[in-house]
Order: sequence, then C-alpha cells, then structure tokens
Amino acid sequence: MQQPGANGKLEHRTSLRVRYAEVDRLGTYYNSRALEWFEVGRTEIMRAHGMVYTQWEEQGYMLPLVEAHVNYRGRAQYDDLLWLDVSMEMAGRASLKFSVRITNEAGEAVAEGYTVHAIVHPDGRPIRPPEWLLQRFE
Amino acid sequence: MQQPGANGKLEHRTSLRVRYAEVDRLGTYYNSRALEWFEVGRTEIMRAHGMVYTQWEEQGYMLPLVEAHVNYRGRAQYDDLLWLDVSMEMAGRASLKFSVRITNEAGEAVAEGYTVHAIVHPDGRPIRPPEWLLQRFE
Amino acid sequence: MQQPGANGKLEHRTSLRVRYAEVDRLGTYYNSRALEWFEVGRTEIMRAHGMVYTQWEEQGYMLPLVEAHVNYRGRAQYDDLLWLDVSMEMAGRASLKFSVRITNEAGEAVAEGYTVHAIVHPDGRPIRPPEWLLQRFE
Amino acid sequence: MQQPGANGKLEHRTSLRVRYAEVDRLGTYYNSRALEWFEVGRTEIMRAHGMVYTQWEEQGYMLPLVEAHVNYRGRAQYDDLLWLDVSMEMAGRASLKFSVRITNEAGEAVAEGYTVHAIVHPDGRPIRPPEWLLQRFE
Repeated sequence: MQQPGANGKLEHRTSLRVRYAEVDRLGTYYNSRALEWFEVGRTEIMRAHGMVYTQWEEQGYMLPLVEAHVNYRGRAQYDDLLWLDVSMEMAGRASLKFSVRITNEAGEAVAEGYTVHAIVHPDGRPIRPPEWLLQRFE
Repeated sequence: MQQPGANGKLEHRTSLRVRYAEVDRLGTYYNSRALEWFEVGRTEIMRAHGMVYTQWEEQGYMLPLVEAHVNYRGRAQYDDLLWLDVSMEMAGRASLKFSVRITNEAGEAVAEGYTVHAIVHPDGRPIRPPEWLLQRFE
Repeated sequence: MQQPGANGKLEHRTSLRVRYAEVDRLGTYYNSRALEWFEVGRTEIMRAHGMVYTQWEEQGYMLPLVEAHVNYRGRAQYDDLLWLDVSMEMAGRASLKFSVRITNEAGEAVAEGYTVHAIVHPDGRPIRPPEWLLQRFE
Repeated sequence: MQQPGANGKLEHRTSLRVRYAEVDRLGTYYNSRALEWFEVGRTEIMRAHGMVYTQWEEQGYMLPLVEAHVNYRGRAQYDDLLWLDVSMEMAGRASLKFSVRITNEAGEAVAEGYTVHAIVHPDGRPIRPPEWLLQRFE
C-alpha cells in the first residue's frame, strides 16, 4: 500500500528494463531516454496513489512540462534492470514536481533529476489544482 | 521542378543525416529508425508535389499506416549523409503506397521498403480520395 | 514453464504498457514503435527459453535484422496494457524468424508482423548457428 | 564563415523540421525530443567550427553527458521549421557546455537549455582537452 511520505511528498518505486533501442554506440543509454524513463516513473507513481493520469486528462487537467533536469551518474546497458525511485510534490500553487533517482540492481547510481509541470486546462490556461490532488499532500 | 514519374508514380529525392540518437551499440542505425526516415521521405515527397501533409489533415483526410515493410541492406553510422529516393502511387481505390530506397553517399544500399496507407476521415471511416490527389497520378 | 511449440517453433507471451512518448498526435502509437515492441518480445522469448541475448553477443553471435514487416490492425493508446505473443523459429540454415502478434486487454488486434535475422559473427560474416540453438527447435 | 563569439564562446545557428514521430497526442513535441534536437545542434556547431565529432572519437576523445537542463517555452507542431541557436564554451578545465535556444519561424521561444559534457578517454578517464580545442576559445 502506498503512503504519503514525509514533508508533503508522495513516494513510489518502480522498475524497467533497458531496451536495445535505448542504448547508443557507447553501449550505455542514450541521454534523452532518461526523460522517457522519468515519464514511466510519473505514470506509475500516479497509478500507485490512485490518480491514474488518463483520468486527469478526462477531467480536464493536463500536466505539460515546464522544466526538466538530468544528472547523468553512471552507465546502464541493454537488458539491465533499473530501479526508479520517484517522488511527487506541489511546487508552488499550480505546479507539480516529480523527482526521480535511477539505480541499477547493484545499487549504483545511473541518473537522477526532476521535471516540473504546470497544471493547466486543455486550452492551456493555468488552473487551480483539484481538491483530490491537494488532499493527497496534506 | 518535380515531375510525375512513369506509370502513375510520383518521385522525389531527399536527404538526411544520421543522428547520434539513432545509432545503437553495433554502431549502425537501430532498426525502427528506418520507419522514421521513411516518414521524412513521405513528408518531403508530398511537399515537393504541392500536397503538404498538414493540409491533408486540415481538409479532413488522414493517412494511417496499414502495412510497413523494410529490407535492411547495409550499415549507416552517426553523421552519415543518406539519400532517400521516394515514390508515391495509388494502391487500390482508397490506399496510397510510398516506396523508399535509402543509400549512402557512396551509393551503397542502406535500406529499402514501403508503407501502405489508408485514406480515411478523422473518424476512421475510409473515404474517396480527393480529386487533387487523383489528378496528380494521371 | 515454457515449452517448445509444435512445428519447431518456440512460443512466449509477454506484456508491456504503452508510454506517453510512444503515442502520436492521433492518440495511437506511432508506427515505428511496433518495431521497438517486437524487440521487447524477442528479448523476452529468448530469456524465457534460457537464451538471454546478452549471452549470445558474449559468445560471438549477433542477430542483425535482415527484414521487418508490420501489419497495423488497430489503435493502442497511452497506458494501454498490451499482450505480445511471440514465436521464434529457424528460417533457412542461418536465419531466425520472430513473429509477433500484439493485442490489447480486450483481445483486439493492435499489430502483427515479423522480423528475420541473420546469425553472424561480430565481423559480419554469416556463421553456423550454435548447437544449443538448433537443439531447442528439435 | 563561422567566427568565435565574444567571451570565449563559439556560436552557430542551424535548423530542423519537426517530424511526425516527435509529436505527442497534445500536438506538440514530446519532451525528450528537445534533448535529441540539442544533439543535432551540438553536431552542427562542431562541424561549423571545423571539429567534426566523428573525428573527436577517432582521436580518442569522448564527450559523455554529465548534466542536461531544458526549459520548455512553447509548442512546436509537426512540420514546423525550428531554429537552433547553439553556443559552445569550456566549463571548468575538462568540461564543455553547449547552450541551445530553439525558436520557431515566427521567432517565438520553443525551448532552451544546456548540456554539460565531460572530456574523457574511451576508457572513461577524464583527460586534458586537446590543444586544437582550447585554441578555438582564445
């Protein structure tokens, strides 16, 4: 069962395997793939906390990225199993921040970073976050 | 100036450079990238023949893929300049076929293949191809 | 437990979730993604039958694609859970063929197709398939 | 002819067209694509200043990413022509920083950010930057 973490953060751990398509000629993951993996982490932390993202969009809330940051810490090769430790918190009144730390099975750091998302109406206008979201961080 | 080719085919040549992101750990392009390059070829043959694809969608015509085929012929590395020789023809009454041959600067084969596309209304229903399209193949 | 299927085919079923990154502006998976999913299917059928692909490369066998074919059968949206039914068989004396059928949770067809792979030495030279491979198809 | 900019920075402008594959279901580029476009910018600024990146690797220098940052400023749709204004400078004694600003044909901001790269030997060991690189920033 997922519980809110301390300090108004939700937390979740998920995993994925590195695909052949994701590895470049240096034998490690191509840099932009970290952002695709962060997206997998966001999808799964929202599902784990009962806020499946497809339902956000059905209810008229969208979460476009405003900012992304990645620190590359180590290599990850084809077929490696990676852990994604994801946290989710409010960042100001109408933004969400997801932080992700990726490690391999040996516990070595692969990448870490974050994305900041506006909470907007499908027409692009910033809107007040829904109550069901705010309650989860209390 | 682009001219219709023989046999009801339109033809066009375009080029692109292999991105680092597109190369896998064997040092050649990852297989699915061929289909992304075919898409670049389709975009450019339609532009060259006065049928910019964004205008198709604005007029209510969509071209979802029905079938794709690729024969992998040779390697292509990061930063290689590739030639795409593209042809476009009707395939039956409501389908389009694009064929693509990719070669490197030395004229060596890299890949060839084709995609077949339905011509549909945005609701997914097959529709009669527009007159301006049919005229181009006469 | 995985068993060889009839007719010298190995079979395996795996699943994956559609990523946001994989969906285009029509709300369904972008066409080249089918080939990336086929790759996931190949990785997992080989693991299930005790032939992890990283070990192939360590032993000096590589499986470059010679040919790929996809028939697009239906839509798949962000976060859909997809089933991949994969089979693996010899295709001639030094080639392997993997066939994949992708369906959604409702059992509806999403895509199907195949890839054909040469069995080569890292220097590109075709080589005799290893005994441990041939035995699996007997 | 490319000239070094002020303050030890090299500068270059290049362009690219948004591919259909790069647009998500919101009709704008998927977030990780910005990093792939930054890579195109790096490739072209190095070529423009006589330092083709394939030659770096041939001479035993590699530029793995240490850090990446993107600020998402606006939408970019399929077939939009984008400008990439790239700059390149030393960041400390053994690191390079590339900054990229992406705008559309109307001059509107699409994204901006940077990547920081270590300069390393193929075995991963940090090495002194080559003289031909340092001279370009004098």
